[in-house]
Amino acid sequence: MADEFRLIADLFAPLAAGFPGALGLKDDAALLAAEAGTETVVTVDAMVAGVHFLPDDLPELIARKLVRVNLSDLAAKGAVPFAVLLAAAFPQRIDDDWLRRFAAGLAEDLTRFAVALIGGDTVATPGPLTLSLTALGRVAAGRALLRSQAQLGDTIWVSGTIGDGFLGLAAARGALTGLDQADVATLADRYHLPRPRTTLGPALIGVAHAAMDVSDGLVQDLGHICRASAVAAVIEAERVPLSAAAQATNSPLASLLTGGDDYELLFTAPFRAAAALTRIGEAAGVPLTAIGRIVAGEGVTVVDAAGQALAIGQGGWRHFAKGDAWPV
Amino acid sequence: MADEFRLIADLFAPLAAGFPGALGLKDDAALLAAEAGTETVVTVDAMVAGVHFLPDDLPELIARKLVRVNLSDLAAKGAVPFAVLLAAAFPQRIDDDWLRRFAAGLAEDLTRFAVALIGGDTVATPGPLTLSLTALGRVAAGRALLRSQAQLGDTIWVSGTIGDGFLGLAAARGALTGLDQADVATLADRYHLPRPRTTLGPALIGVAHAAMDVSDGLVQDLGHICRASAVAAVIEAERVPLSAAAQATNSPLASLLTGGDDYELLFTAPFRAAAALTRIGEAAGVPLTAIGRIVAGEGVTVVDAAGQALAIGQGGWRHFAKGDAWPV
Repeated sequence: MADEFRLIADLFAPLAAGFPGALGLKDDAALLAAEAGTETVVTVDAMVAGVHFLPDDLPELIARKLVRVNLSDLAAKGAVPFAVLLAAAFPQRIDDDWLRRFAAGLAEDLTRFAVALIGGDTVATPGPLTLSLTALGRVAAGRALLRSQAQLGDTIWVSGTIGDGFLGLAAARGALTGLDQADVATLADRYHLPRPRTTLGPALIGVAHAAMDVSDGLVQDLGHICRASAVAAVIEAERVPLSAAAQATNSPLASLLTGGDDYELLFTAPFRAAAALTRIGEAAGVPLTAIGRIVAGEGVTVVDAAGQALAIGQGGWRHFAKGDAWPV
Repeated sequence: MADEFRLIADLFAPLAAGFPGALGLKDDAALLAAEAGTETVVTVDAMVAGVHFLPDDLPELIARKLVRVNLSDLAAKGAVPFAVLLAAAFPQRIDDDWLRRFAAGLAEDLTRFAVALIGGDTVATPGPLTLSLTALGRVAAGRALLRSQAQLGDTIWVSGTIGDGFLGLAAARGALTGLDQADVATLADRYHLPRPRTTLGPALIGVAHAAMDVSDGLVQDLGHICRASAVAAVIEAERVPLSAAAQATNSPLASLLTGGDDYELLFTAPFRAAAALTRIGEAAGVPLTAIGRIVAGEGVTVVDAAGQALAIGQGGWRHFAKGDAWPV
């Protein structure tokens, strides 16, 4: 790996340009200046080949997904991203061409989102490719969006469409037979390249109450907001926005609401904010949809158009008595 | 792994106590307040079972070494550590007992060094245990110690003793036969539990010019300082401080100077700082030793008592014409 380590250093150094505190990636650590009136938001996500991405996924796409997944966490806090650090454990079989393509993908998305690579560590592993990215963003002090701020009566909103990431994994694996090729490509793209809502997130500060990004699945993640805020949530199933490609799959709604990998923003806001949110979504270039409301109690309930509660069972969705919650 | 993930959350949450910005480890990210007049120093190091530690090492010691290796990087910058984030890829075979012991080791050293766990990510891996720690420290703005600040005429200093970590790996593997058992235990302990110089590092600010920690080996790491500072270095071999246990092994000096895993501080300072440094070492409880000087040129030269340059060859050390450098 000795030569590869040198190559990595050569490939990564330009990604630190423009950030003096990165010390050219030639020191043991990076320096972050304090900005009065701000807080730094820091998050870390790990990805393992065969677990979080397919081992044969294109190296460019692996790098870009790694960046985007982390920027999505920052967007959910309302933070503007500015830097990342990469810890990478590379298996021996990774060659120069793979590394060049990985670095190219990293460069493309770091440039796109105006983020610098300011540090990291590269090691060899006898196991699968394992990547860990630490991402740093900035937010006005005391203004970060938290999971714990949902309030009774809040409307629940979600950005973009739900279920595409989950379906995209199936599409990338070639498991979506019978679907139009354009739809397959659209869904696979959504799986490989999440859209971190980096413009939307900061725009929600002062408007949204609670927020997070949807990575585990809409229902599970809304459950996190409910627990952190000591409230319950009701989702109206028919309001959940689905892409045309997702609708074409005729997948059970249960899969789409619990499948994960959406990387959309899920947030709550007072009823009076509806008009402002529509404008914010338009300005950010991403549709926002009201899908439910925050109520007293515990857990997340999904209801159909008639107000009947749906619950997930072994075989999919089944009807429950109205009001039964599904604690997650 | 589902139950393990819950156990990990339960075990780790107390490690965030006392750091409100950690949000109880229940949110997607942590918040760091800006402190006027300071810079935040951030570093990341990855460790893989079978590469950076022995797969059968005690879980407590793996956790503690992970913390200490990262705090050593912060100490080399003169920074006071305050928080870490952990990204861990756990293999399936890791059980509850192992996790409890890992968390106990983490708790012990985070408490010892007054550092909070403020975030992280836990994933499953089909490969070896892979750990990545992001560590954050604080330093007065513009005062961090850098590799690039060595100046002609500086004295080169090192803390503690050199070579113990390298010998400790052999000791931990049972490869140091014929050595006194107490010496074997001392060396193995040095390998398992580096001593990050967290008190010494901040005390060097305003006194030392360049600094870094010795992780790759004294000669290699001094080479990093030389390249970053555009200078050369001469080490007097006989001045390099060796522990009694290291001396008892009769190991070739070449191995000790290039073996790595020392996690001592290597720094340069003007000649006039000698007396101040002796006092700083005494106050920090770690001996400091002057081992050489910064000169014009490139690379690192190691000289014997007669001033003859030594160079490493395939079979160990051999004599070179005086002044020949070993560019690293």
